[in-house]
Amino acid sequence: MKLPPKDQLIMGIHAVREVFLHAPRRLIAVYYNEPQKQGRKSELIASIEKEGIPIIAASNDELYRMTGSDSHQSIAAHVKGRTFLNVGQFLGQIDGKPSLVLMADQIFDPQNFGSLIRSAECLGADAICWSKNRGADITPTVAKSSCGASEIIPLIRISNLAEAVSEFQDGGFDAVAALLEKGSENAFTFQFSERTLLIVGSEGEGIQPLIRKRANRSIFIPMKGKIDSLNVSQAASLLMGLYQRQFISPLGK
Amino acid sequence: MKLPPKDQLIMGIHAVREVFLHAPRRLIAVYYNEPQKQGRKSELIASIEKEGIPIIAASNDELYRMTGSDSHQSIAAHVKGRTFLNVGQFLGQIDGKPSLVLMADQIFDPQNFGSLIRSAECLGADAICWSKNRGADITPTVAKSSCGASEIIPLIRISNLAEAVSEFQDGGFDAVAALLEKGSENAFTFQFSERTLLIVGSEGEGIQPLIRKRANRSIFIPMKGKIDSLNVSQAASLLMGLYQRQFISPLGK
Repeated sequence: MKLPPKDQLIMGIHAVREVFLHAPRRLIAVYYNEPQKQGRKSELIASIEKEGIPIIAASNDELYRMTGSDSHQSIAAHVKGRTFLNVGQFLGQIDGKPSLVLMADQIFDPQNFGSLIRSAECLGADAICWSKNRGADITPTVAKSSCGASEIIPLIRISNLAEAVSEFQDGGFDAVAALLEKGSENAFTFQFSERTLLIVGSEGEGIQPLIRKRANRSIFIPMKGKIDSLNVSQAASLLMGLYQRQFISPLGK
Repeated sequence: MKLPPKDQLIMGIHAVREVFLHAPRRLIAVYYNEPQKQGRKSELIASIEKEGIPIIAASNDELYRMTGSDSHQSIAAHVKGRTFLNVGQFLGQIDGKPSLVLMADQIFDPQNFGSLIRSAECLGADAICWSKNRGADITPTVAKSSCGASEIIPLIRISNLAEAVSEFQDGGFDAVAALLEKGSENAFTFQFSERTLLIVGSEGEGIQPLIRKRANRSIFIPMKGKIDSLNVSQAASLLMGLYQRQFISPLGK
């Protein structure tokens, strides 16, 4: 079997389902190991087949070799190559509108990166931005953890994040670094700008100094407990929720 | 080597560190496989040793047998048996104060359960409440995912969650189910009661019908994206953050 390139593979039942539901044209073919007992999976497979998308039988061993992971849940999909935007292209698309972009700095853990992409998509961020040189890239594991959101949300994948921060600022964005430092503002009383670039770093590494310096504001979540930090995707969900809250709630403005 | 009971074991470098920092008296002994290269782990071990807590050499194989997992990161700890409260005992402790309690219904995935415990502790929930009959219990994997929070936050572990909901209500709590149904209120404009029992269910199973029925309010997070739900621990973090926000922010009241 000729294996599709790994950067065009997604895996896992939820990821394949979400992409089929929301971006079916991204699917080139689905690789599937039919289970002995017919279950929930088969309904999805039948629907995919009905749309004329090829279903290719694959053993779990082939799925493992394809995806480089044993978390494929007996299903993977070959997707069309992703479109990556640069900051200029993205700014051209949003025109004069309010916008929230999540920037992920030094997120090396694929599950954290996937979770961040999922929460950004769910909570209506307009794009996720990361550096291909510092942190995880979109692998089958990331696509799975993102629940397929990696195939749905606009992707700004660049080399130099610090330069990107400045480009966003030139485009009218506030660059808001999520970190506790002198001058950090309390997330619960923070007034977001309509255009916000929210920058989060990994739990171990944090946000690179160069990027911190360029950010024009910083924000922290007051922790009442003894353990002093949420997981990065929990923190990002809370911060993105507070942004959404401010712009939809009658209390927030 | 005589192995400590599994329900008194935690594992993973972060979990052991947090328990050592915030609840050192919970540690009976630390099992540790010294790495070839001295690194970050050894500093922690030295500090633990200084406090008179025994460090016991263990191979990775022994750590695997002890914890039932290969994610131990070469370290585990035998902790004192946990104290579990029932609802009445908990209500006696909080006296007349405002209070947030997170109730986890049918959370079978240990990582999700651990993440929920972690975010509840970080965001200042006064306890986590779950049923020992329906969902994960605290295992070494859960303790690791909770980053040690399972040893720090008060634990309300009971048999019947539906009865517990009523007991909380009798204690002056609003029981708020996180789910989208007729009459669910928008989380972003929701006015929390000072005493809130926030009930979350698993992604697959949701909240049991009996518990939904007893809840006196329900709340949903408006999703702007195409994928229609956050991971349960991301959603819980956002909802607990909105509770905290309401009671600390000048805007919220």
